[in-house]
Amino acid sequence: MATSPAHRTAAVPARVLRLRGGRWDSRSDRLAGEEPMEVRIAIAGGPAEPIAVTMRTPGADFALAAGFLVTEGIVEAADIEGVAYCTDPAEEQAYNVVVVASRRPPRREVRARAHAVTAACGVCGTATLEDLCARCAPVADARAVPAAALLGLPDVLLEHQRGFDRTGALHAAGLFGPEGVPVCVREDVGRHNAVDKVVGWAALEGRLPLGGHVLLVSGRSSFEIVQKAAVAGIPVVCAVSGPSSLAVATADALGVTLVGFLREDRMNVYTHPHRITREA
Amino acid sequence: MATSPAHRTAAVPARVLRLRGGRWDSRSDRLAGEEPMEVRIAIAGGPAEPIAVTMRTPGADFALAAGFLVTEGIVEAADIEGVAYCTDPAEEQAYNVVVVASRRPPRREVRARAHAVTAACGVCGTATLEDLCARCAPVADARAVPAAALLGLPDVLLEHQRGFDRTGALHAAGLFGPEGVPVCVREDVGRHNAVDKVVGWAALEGRLPLGGHVLLVSGRSSFEIVQKAAVAGIPVVCAVSGPSSLAVATADALGVTLVGFLREDRMNVYTHPHRITREA
Repeated sequence: MATSPAHRTAAVPARVLRLRGGRWDSRSDRLAGEEPMEVRIAIAGGPAEPIAVTMRTPGADFALAAGFLVTEGIVEAADIEGVAYCTDPAEEQAYNVVVVASRRPPRREVRARAHAVTAACGVCGTATLEDLCARCAPVADARAVPAAALLGLPDVLLEHQRGFDRTGALHAAGLFGPEGVPVCVREDVGRHNAVDKVVGWAALEGRLPLGGHVLLVSGRSSFEIVQKAAVAGIPVVCAVSGPSSLAVATADALGVTLVGFLREDRMNVYTHPHRITREA
Repeated sequence: MATSPAHRTAAVPARVLRLRGGRWDSRSDRLAGEEPMEVRIAIAGGPAEPIAVTMRTPGADFALAAGFLVTEGIVEAADIEGVAYCTDPAEEQAYNVVVVASRRPPRREVRARAHAVTAACGVCGTATLEDLCARCAPVADARAVPAAALLGLPDVLLEHQRGFDRTGALHAAGLFGPEGVPVCVREDVGRHNAVDKVVGWAALEGRLPLGGHVLLVSGRSSFEIVQKAAVAGIPVVCAVSGPSSLAVATADALGVTLVGFLREDRMNVYTHPHRITREA
């Protein structure tokens, strides 16, 4: 696998005109990198077929591609034979096309297309959830984590957000072990991409499912975030901000403990609170 | 056009277990509503064909559908004959399928598909930008806005964020007139949807292009946000947080003045600063 020069573009230099307290100056700054990335699948040694394009922050591209395919239920982690940048000599290499080699064909189309084919007037959160439940078993992990351990996680995540530190404009997802030890922290302009990078890392390391682990995201939690965590078998999902209604419904249906507004000495627990030990 | 009961679900009631300063209690709360919405197009009185599914906060659904189609370059605002919920009697009505009647066929496929067909190893921000420039003229508006007027906008936006006030988990996009007067503020779990709701409102009101206006988004600015603003002819785009590298490149190429970190007495101007009058 080639190492990508794109790894250096998570923070892109730029000139900026700044106003601070009534004074203007021009200075150099760093922007959160954003580039399109195309994911292709090559089945059993066959030609690579495009599956999806996502805007992402360059870096951890192989994990992002693997994580996207696994969390969307398109490829099983065990079927991934390898991941590489596209090296077709007829095409200019921009390190923005990633090919995942899979032993088996895609198990489903990417979501947008699947919906476009099957959706009816009745398309709704319930139908979407039933579709997800049909291909994702509820998380059964019974281990509990102390509330006090969760309260410390946002500070640990922030310490590891090197891109945010430089750009102020990147989301982060952090995976923590049973003792609250950070296992993998990834950043991206898209929160769902940061989660895919974390889950894809675990998939390529052969660590799925992630029983006993906690996922923390820097922003809000949506249907998509909870779905991806559940597919990876993560029993506890925390967010620094609040969840959507469908995030809560999904966590409830898939046995995920969902925590929101995890900040300082506060948290809200929306679903399956039995996994959180509540000694004050 | 039917009024939708879904308009009431922007904030969904829920029970939550809260930890505050070492004390736990159980109380009722409100969650940001999230539901899938399918957009269909009916051409010249023909049958409705599905185009895309997006997760969104119910409310302003017709504006969201129109705004999505216009800002993605799929339908021209002038070709929209009407917008309605799907009322096929064979399907259960969930107010989550919106049909846009258009005089003419779609001008392009939705982005994910178009890319999936044409992308090569060389897929990159530059190619994406060239594709956008080919179908969107640069914003030519020369009118200037005083820096002091921009500094006041985040507070005005926050005053209008009724959903955020109740849920703490909704993004907002606000359109302001030349004098800094709020013209249209919309909220959504997705920032791009909030922008589509604003632009779609203007499209359905016959107000495009939006010369002399300012768009403010509550979070960061990405390629997608700047693209949508440029298609709507909005000359100044501000965000409370930072932009991505591709947001800056897109604003630069399309003649949009891009402002980031607009908070209190501060702002960063990334592109086309001539539109901002800089008396301190």
